[in-house]
Amino acid sequence: MSVVLAVDVGGTGLKGAVVDVHGRALVRRERPTALDGRGALDNLLALLAELAELAGPHRPVAVGVGTPGTVDEASGTVVHASNLGWRDLGLRALLEEATGLPVAVGHDARAAGRAEQLASGARDSFVFVPIGTGISAALVVRGTAVSGVSGAAGEFGHVVVHPDGEPCPCGQRGCVEAYAAAGAVLRRYRARGGRAGSTAEVVARVGRDADADADADAVWADAVGALALGLQGVTMLLDPAEIVLGGGVSRAGAVLLDPLAADLRSLLAWRSPPPLRTARWGAQAGRVGAALLGFERVGTTPRFELPHVPGTAGAGTG
Amino acid sequence: MSVVLAVDVGGTGLKGAVVDVHGRALVRRERPTALDGRGALDNLLALLAELAELAGPHRPVAVGVGTPGTVDEASGTVVHASNLGWRDLGLRALLEEATGLPVAVGHDARAAGRAEQLASGARDSFVFVPIGTGISAALVVRGTAVSGVSGAAGEFGHVVVHPDGEPCPCGQRGCVEAYAAAGAVLRRYRARGGRAGSTAEVVARVGRDADADADADAVWADAVGALALGLQGVTMLLDPAEIVLGGGVSRAGAVLLDPLAADLRSLLAWRSPPPLRTARWGAQAGRVGAALLGFERVGTTPRFELPHVPGTAGAGTG
Repeated sequence: MSVVLAVDVGGTGLKGAVVDVHGRALVRRERPTALDGRGALDNLLALLAELAELAGPHRPVAVGVGTPGTVDEASGTVVHASNLGWRDLGLRALLEEATGLPVAVGHDARAAGRAEQLASGARDSFVFVPIGTGISAALVVRGTAVSGVSGAAGEFGHVVVHPDGEPCPCGQRGCVEAYAAAGAVLRRYRARGGRAGSTAEVVARVGRDADADADADAVWADAVGALALGLQGVTMLLDPAEIVLGGGVSRAGAVLLDPLAADLRSLLAWRSPPPLRTARWGAQAGRVGAALLGFERVGTTPRFELPHVPGTAGAGTG
Repeated sequence: MSVVLAVDVGGTGLKGAVVDVHGRALVRRERPTALDGRGALDNLLALLAELAELAGPHRPVAVGVGTPGTVDEASGTVVHASNLGWRDLGLRALLEEATGLPVAVGHDARAAGRAEQLASGARDSFVFVPIGTGISAALVVRGTAVSGVSGAAGEFGHVVVHPDGEPCPCGQRGCVEAYAAAGAVLRRYRARGGRAGSTAEVVARVGRDADADADADAVWADAVGALALGLQGVTMLLDPAEIVLGGGVSRAGAVLLDPLAADLRSLLAWRSPPPLRTARWGAQAGRVGAALLGFERVGTTPRFELPHVPGTAGAGTG
């Protein structure tokens, strides 16, 4: 069976997998992204070498890589990815040289959005928002994610929602990401004196009747509020059939979805909000999206199967 | 030569014309929109009857009508247009009955955006923002304006840019329209004690060294600031090749464009703003867009000619 080597390049970690045409990860490996552009590239090369070896009898037919930032998908160039320190990096040529395989480089959120689309029955018009170290979006219009004139569309995380608000690492003020990205939640919780080792720990303290943690509640309310404001704009502009949340922060589930739906509703006076749900691929959406890029690079249309909803019976999605 | 009857239905006035396939208005007539839905419909019917008579020897082949709000273009139904008091109005059927001609009903901004596109050389990706009684947008992606799952896309005027800001007539708070629509500028100027009979009078008092009018300056700065915040989001989400401003307020020209470009630039830390310009069709874009709908209804592709830029030599656009 043909497989591809797939890597979802995140701001914190590189998530790799050997993925088959059904979207199943036969093996998974992760590495930290590293703190500078050269280190991130070295780690990516090492991860791909490791995955190639682990593929064993399955001979990989291609490599698919999803990266954040501004990506020129036609040439496989990362034009600008601030979280990675990459600028005008001809990633596809570099990786083809190193692996000897055909390589596709695409935008992480757009690729993940398309994987979600394949898995959930190809909606014509929806918005996929992965919330992790960074926040972006695949804005699917008439079946295809908008890439924009320079490949820079979908930067939902850098829509300004509080004009004089929090400084964002990107240099702007009041971006959605400055409140709602995983790192922002943790940083803002600590700035209020809270102690936590991870964003998940903060989220676990939100909205409890007993053991109330006012700092966790306040920081989370700001995160949800910023997302709601950004999504109000997306709703007004694009009128999507649904909004799908992915990425690590979406694992919060109802703790995220319920207040977000309420906030979004309160910002809309004369139309109902689009339905809101978490991604069917869950935190694997990025990896599956990268795999999709790889398969398409060699003219293969994968037959992705709808993964099982967490908590239901049946084999996992690998 | 074949002509159509075209009407651009605005929140304040009905702008009608008999338009030929070159986009020239052979005759123009306007009527007020009226204060209620029934009155607006009666005025529209009367205006169409008047235009049909004025067409004289040119026999109209169709009627094209552009309306604001949520429009189902396939059925010619105005689902919801708050400025007009229309809800679930089967306008196409009504007008075909009354005129005996084939009728097309479309969204005003999307139709005007397409007319602009035809006139300025069909950009694949741009945003057209008519600023008048209301504010909306044609978001052109891959050559076609986004209509959304329910025909409600492009409501740029109701993107919330100041979460606890000015009440908007739509029932929300802090919408772009609550600061930057023609009526909002005039209302907010008067609320500060300024006296003016029209928005154009207020705009004429902006940014003068002598005769400085601090109220006009402040109100205009708020309008420009709200537009800039909304366009920051549009830029981040869609990465358009250019932003084109139309509608009555765009007649302000450099008084609008210069501070808007500066504000937009100051909200973008790591990318340049898309080029900003006023519409080539100017305030006629809505009428020409409605004419385009009419011609397309009967399978005719009009050969719109680029209108002459005001102030340059040559015949007007009629």
